[in-house]
Amino acid sequence: MGFHLRRQGKTMSRSDPRFRLERQRREVDRYLLQLLEKGDEPPSLREAMRHSVAAGGKRLRPLLVIAAAETFGYPAGKVMPVAAAIELVHTYSLIHDDLPAMDDGVLRRGRPTCHRIYGEALAILAGDALLTLAFEEIASFGLSEGQAGRALRINRELARAAGREGMVGGQVLDLQTEGRQITLPELEKIDSRKTGALLQAAVRCGAIAATAGAEALKNLSDYGTCLGLAFQITDDLLDREGEAAALGKDTGADEARGKATMPALIGAAEARRRAEGLYRRALGHLDALGRPAESLAELARQLVYRNS
Amino acid sequence: MGFHLRRQGKTMSRSDPRFRLERQRREVDRYLLQLLEKGDEPPSLREAMRHSVAAGGKRLRPLLVIAAAETFGYPAGKVMPVAAAIELVHTYSLIHDDLPAMDDGVLRRGRPTCHRIYGEALAILAGDALLTLAFEEIASFGLSEGQAGRALRINRELARAAGREGMVGGQVLDLQTEGRQITLPELEKIDSRKTGALLQAAVRCGAIAATAGAEALKNLSDYGTCLGLAFQITDDLLDREGEAAALGKDTGADEARGKATMPALIGAAEARRRAEGLYRRALGHLDALGRPAESLAELARQLVYRNS
Repeated sequence: MGFHLRRQGKTMSRSDPRFRLERQRREVDRYLLQLLEKGDEPPSLREAMRHSVAAGGKRLRPLLVIAAAETFGYPAGKVMPVAAAIELVHTYSLIHDDLPAMDDGVLRRGRPTCHRIYGEALAILAGDALLTLAFEEIASFGLSEGQAGRALRINRELARAAGREGMVGGQVLDLQTEGRQITLPELEKIDSRKTGALLQAAVRCGAIAATAGAEALKNLSDYGTCLGLAFQITDDLLDREGEAAALGKDTGADEARGKATMPALIGAAEARRRAEGLYRRALGHLDALGRPAESLAELARQLVYRNS
Repeated sequence: MGFHLRRQGKTMSRSDPRFRLERQRREVDRYLLQLLEKGDEPPSLREAMRHSVAAGGKRLRPLLVIAAAETFGYPAGKVMPVAAAIELVHTYSLIHDDLPAMDDGVLRRGRPTCHRIYGEALAILAGDALLTLAFEEIASFGLSEGQAGRALRINRELARAAGREGMVGGQVLDLQTEGRQITLPELEKIDSRKTGALLQAAVRCGAIAATAGAEALKNLSDYGTCLGLAFQITDDLLDREGEAAALGKDTGADEARGKATMPALIGAAEARRRAEGLYRRALGHLDALGRPAESLAELARQLVYRNS
């Protein structure tokens, strides 16, 4: 079994996974915006939260949740709160990473970063509120669907991926490496926590919602690991080569700050080869599932062969 | 039925609720420190997290969790993860509130604030990690005790109390009022979100762990509301009158920044009377439970009649 990937064409048929993913991307957007309308928070907080969430982005993580759930027969509509929760955690992390005390980002997703518009205090608090809302969403999902057990497992997955041993820990390591030489294994450790953990959690949470078995979860975890590493390499290549206009965020920033990246360590050509190798390995892990997983394969392709 | 409250004496018998609360306070401390030993996070992150959690404090919120759980027959030892989770959320909020972009605090619990020692980036991230760890704790509690349903309800309570409509929202409102006149209802709205929401959640979460019924939860919520308002008034009185040495944090800070407080609005004597009235109402709500609730009564007393 293998996956035949079409080249980007002018038209898409309805059965094309790209078509389905586009539709789901819009549904994710709609769901997120509705969720942010529901609260009774102060208007300035709502604005700051909306600014960052509404900026869009590829919605890769929620689409991974949905694709993993659908692979095991669980419908997209029902898993939407979990997909949204993962995107909320991702968005919170972008806001906090962009703060002046951290990466001091100016542009994100083609717009000024949250603190550049709303100030530092509100940006910190908007991040806090988005992170908290993610866990509220998962609780609501579990209580309304009457499936507390799996919601609690998802809750734990997400907390672990986001927390001290995951994204937060990775960001700490990342800040500590600025301006000094690091080794390839060190770099991979940072990337696996900072980026890989949440991508892997997205796939796993979708599968847990669909009550996938342990072996499937293992294969999906491996797929997620490959995805995370490939994603970070592609990100670093784009940061190095890309233009701010296409990427929607500051470029060349890593290099300027002497930040270690895979392309800097092993060269751009080798880094690109490595990303493609990881992509093929990711597809291999999907093959091992023994069931159609076109959306997951297409998302891997989009992630590696992207220009923004 | 009523509660006989002893005056602070030189000796405590073993049946004295103060004795039990002291023992539980030490158990909470121990549990929290062990929890912070368990992670595989970068050492600097662990240090920053430990610094703020280990600073101690009254542990009022975890003791409220335990007291509420015990009131409905659920043992202190089993509810400890929930108690710890509430304290983690409280500690995270102190770290973030103290940041230069917010209240710019220098002293907290008798020590330099987190960012004064570890820098802003690590303080933000330590707060993020503690908030996330709280939700991981609750998930672990539910999964290990085989009571996913109530853990998920606790999860939702905590997220709501901490999030956009609770603490985060309250902090936003609070920041917005600096330097301008506000009304009493406005002030009560801020306090109920910023302080009251988590105190109420502590009591409710303990009771939910013990599967207390809806009417009991209602009475406990009312008790928590009174407690929250009384707590904030006492806090403001102490900030106005207290000395940094006794309080362990910056004093006079509210006044210096022209921040509205209850004593500033209605005078110290009237504020004190109001706090005592709220205390009596809190006891009334405990009476309505129709079962012994000595620890909850004692905690209310300690909260209103404190000097730090």
